[in-house]
Amino acid sequence: MKYPEGIVKEKGIKNKTSNDKTTKINYTKRGMGLEDDLNVTNSYYREKDIAYIYKKPTPIKLVKVDYKIGKIKEAYFDMPSTTDYNGIYKGKYIDFEAKETTSLTSFPLGNIHSHQLKHLENIYRHKGVAFLIIRFTRLEETFILMEKDLLDFMKENKRKSIPISYMRKKGYKIKIKYQPRLDYLEALRKNGGI
Amino acid sequence: MKYPEGIVKEKGIKNKTSNDKTTKINYTKRGMGLEDDLNVTNSYYREKDIAYIYKKPTPIKLVKVDYKIGKIKEAYFDMPSTTDYNGIYKGKYIDFEAKETTSLTSFPLGNIHSHQLKHLENIYRHKGVAFLIIRFTRLEETFILMEKDLLDFMKENKRKSIPISYMRKKGYKIKIKYQPRLDYLEALRKNGGI
Repeated sequence: MKYPEGIVKEKGIKNKTSNDKTTKINYTKRGMGLEDDLNVTNSYYREKDIAYIYKKPTPIKLVKVDYKIGKIKEAYFDMPSTTDYNGIYKGKYIDFEAKETTSLTSFPLGNIHSHQLKHLENIYRHKGVAFLIIRFTRLEETFILMEKDLLDFMKENKRKSIPISYMRKKGYKIKIKYQPRLDYLEALRKNGGI
Repeated sequence: MKYPEGIVKEKGIKNKTSNDKTTKINYTKRGMGLEDDLNVTNSYYREKDIAYIYKKPTPIKLVKVDYKIGKIKEAYFDMPSTTDYNGIYKGKYIDFEAKETTSLTSFPLGNIHSHQLKHLENIYRHKGVAFLIIRFTRLEETFILMEKDLLDFMKENKRKSIPISYMRKKGYKIKIKYQPRLDYLEALRKNGGI
């Protein structure tokens, strides 16, 4: 099961009661991980009227709801059927999944659900701009890997992880800058990905 | 506050305990409202490899989570910042909001959040295919209203609801059929909306 990024990061902040291991979400104490970088970047694109790309809400399976006050009392995380991000840029359909890895050598493809990989393939086949954004956190390197190059890799390799050498050769590196923080649209444009 | 369709429809099925007014969600007892029609239609489009258009998950603000078992113990419905549906069709970015009304005479624009209307305008300006799908449930009539025609209406009218006459004149009628149930892509194609 995959949890939304904001939560996993908050795991340290526990607020145990006598009965359970419930963790109270602290929305103010987030670090600047890949998801945050993308959120501020997408906000910047919207503010400047450059692109309208959003992170989709995390799918939740509702079980018990109190309608009087709009309170959800029991629910579970659901499997996402698509990627986390999509939107529009200059009339083009943009669709991607973003992942971090602590590995120094390769990105494990098992980190992405198989139906998400299938989804990216569908988008690519229907002429959307489909890609992964992969960050090697300990190397401080972030890459765009176009769906075409991902498909090529999977066709030619039995390996279940993409070596950093392949990312450096085929991927488009995205540099962290002041504004927008992670200018992936510029990286796509500069490298002919769009 | 807007609740997801599935829930509002289940309001009748109460499962009260001594302490609260919690309603247990029954996922099997759904009728065929507009949302269901769109879900089966979008599934059909995907199965036939025609288009990849999805309903976005309902945004939820998490408060308490038990990570051990992935259970959400307290959460609230959040405001959607975009429309409910988006995706790709023949390389084009598709984006729409779908609403039902019981009115016999007009569709109240107040049924759509102002930021959703703004979102559709942004998508239209960036050359996406943006529209509303409006169903008059008691008249059994379902229309596509293109964003351009919606903007024209709002520019020329101070009225806060769109009369059925305008929908019949400017909208594209979508007929219910066997498969796909609500073929809105065909209605768009036939009328030059795409």
